[in-house]
Amino acid sequence: MDQHVGRPRAERARQLADVLRQQITDGTPADGVLPDERILGRRFGASRNAVRDALALLRQEGLITRRRGVGTTVVLSKYGHGLERLTGLAEELTGRGTVTNEVRAAAEVPVLPAAIAARLEVPPGAGGVYVERLRWLDGLPLSLDSSHLTAETGRAVLAGDLVERDVFSLIEEAAGAPLGRAEVAVHAVNADADTARLLGIEAGAAVFALERLTRLADGRPVDVESIRIRADRMTLRSTLHRGGPRTTV
Amino acid sequence: MDQHVGRPRAERARQLADVLRQQITDGTPADGVLPDERILGRRFGASRNAVRDALALLRQEGLITRRRGVGTTVVLSKYGHGLERLTGLAEELTGRGTVTNEVRAAAEVPVLPAAIAARLEVPPGAGGVYVERLRWLDGLPLSLDSSHLTAETGRAVLAGDLVERDVFSLIEEAAGAPLGRAEVAVHAVNADADTARLLGIEAGAAVFALERLTRLADGRPVDVESIRIRADRMTLRSTLHRGGPRTTV
Repeated sequence: MDQHVGRPRAERARQLADVLRQQITDGTPADGVLPDERILGRRFGASRNAVRDALALLRQEGLITRRRGVGTTVVLSKYGHGLERLTGLAEELTGRGTVTNEVRAAAEVPVLPAAIAARLEVPPGAGGVYVERLRWLDGLPLSLDSSHLTAETGRAVLAGDLVERDVFSLIEEAAGAPLGRAEVAVHAVNADADTARLLGIEAGAAVFALERLTRLADGRPVDVESIRIRADRMTLRSTLHRGGPRTTV
Repeated sequence: MDQHVGRPRAERARQLADVLRQQITDGTPADGVLPDERILGRRFGASRNAVRDALALLRQEGLITRRRGVGTTVVLSKYGHGLERLTGLAEELTGRGTVTNEVRAAAEVPVLPAAIAARLEVPPGAGGVYVERLRWLDGLPLSLDSSHLTAETGRAVLAGDLVERDVFSLIEEAAGAPLGRAEVAVHAVNADADTARLLGIEAGAAVFALERLTRLADGRPVDVESIRIRADRMTLRSTLHRGGPRTTV
């Protein structure tokens, strides 16, 4: 018995995929194997076609894989990146895999682009540093991070180990103090050709595009980043509280 | 003089688009009109082709529009949705536009799907309520929100004004107390056919897919949502602090 008789097929597929996605996000099934179409259909009161369409959507999102004889398995549970504390990627993923960095650019820039200088609150015409890294997790590309840094901090970062370490930890070492805060804007975009090539995904695949402006403890901005993250490999997570604005820690 | 001679054209376009996106995110230019290609090229030390490619990427993302005679304009600055406090959409956008809701489903469900019952911490086989709304902001579709609610709270929500009000405010009215917290997982996905049709975007366009589990003040879960948000109209924003975990407020 299909509870949604009369609804368009695409709508039934979307709603069923929603429920299955909640289940996968929740970490079940623990063995990563989903029941077969017949059992799923019975469980959700849905037709076999609706189940098949829903699984096709989840496969497109990269959440599951389907193979004859093996069945439907959760491909790779996505890594969660917290949106509550300011952390670098390697730090965030401590204990969950090995982050390595392919340094694609690391050089002084004689004149920062005007829009970047404005965000960094340095005078127009000021120089700085540009660092671009492709970040790998356990041998798969995960994100492409581009940083424009203020001159003094940037030079210290250039002198550091950009292959092994987070830029944040290099900045803190140079500053001799922890970072302050960062303003983050999260976009979802279709991957452009260059990003897709570097991240090993199809052009047009959905990716996160983050803009992050990071400040020292005294409030001075030091690092403007554009970050693209494979959305089939990472979920951004947060716990939100009702009530007044966040207490600064 | 192109600062990036020898780099592939797609890479130059990506990097230039990054800088322009930072500028647009920052709210400049204030009049929404970007300088012409020649001026942008001079400003960024980039070739006219690189500028043209970068603008093509931003147009694809829905950030700008280009018209002969008018030039390049920022289409519609995106709405920012904070990721710091738990807020409903209408509440979040107070003063920035009028949210109206098209109720697509609002009914009791005799048996909640097992995955949903598990997340709501109710026994398998328990009933509940399903509400699905397409949310419009100033006459354009912005998001598609599907909620599974526990039975008692859900019935109170069904009795409320689902066209005009946030589900959160209806829950709080029923509970006689503010909500507690919510765990949110943010994905970026390519829009499926049904979502695309409802949100008025092309199938495959990047959208945010949020899963949100909302709890009452005493910690009991009451609302499991799957939310899809047009990523060309909304940015998720947060200020992250360095240091220990967030202080509960």
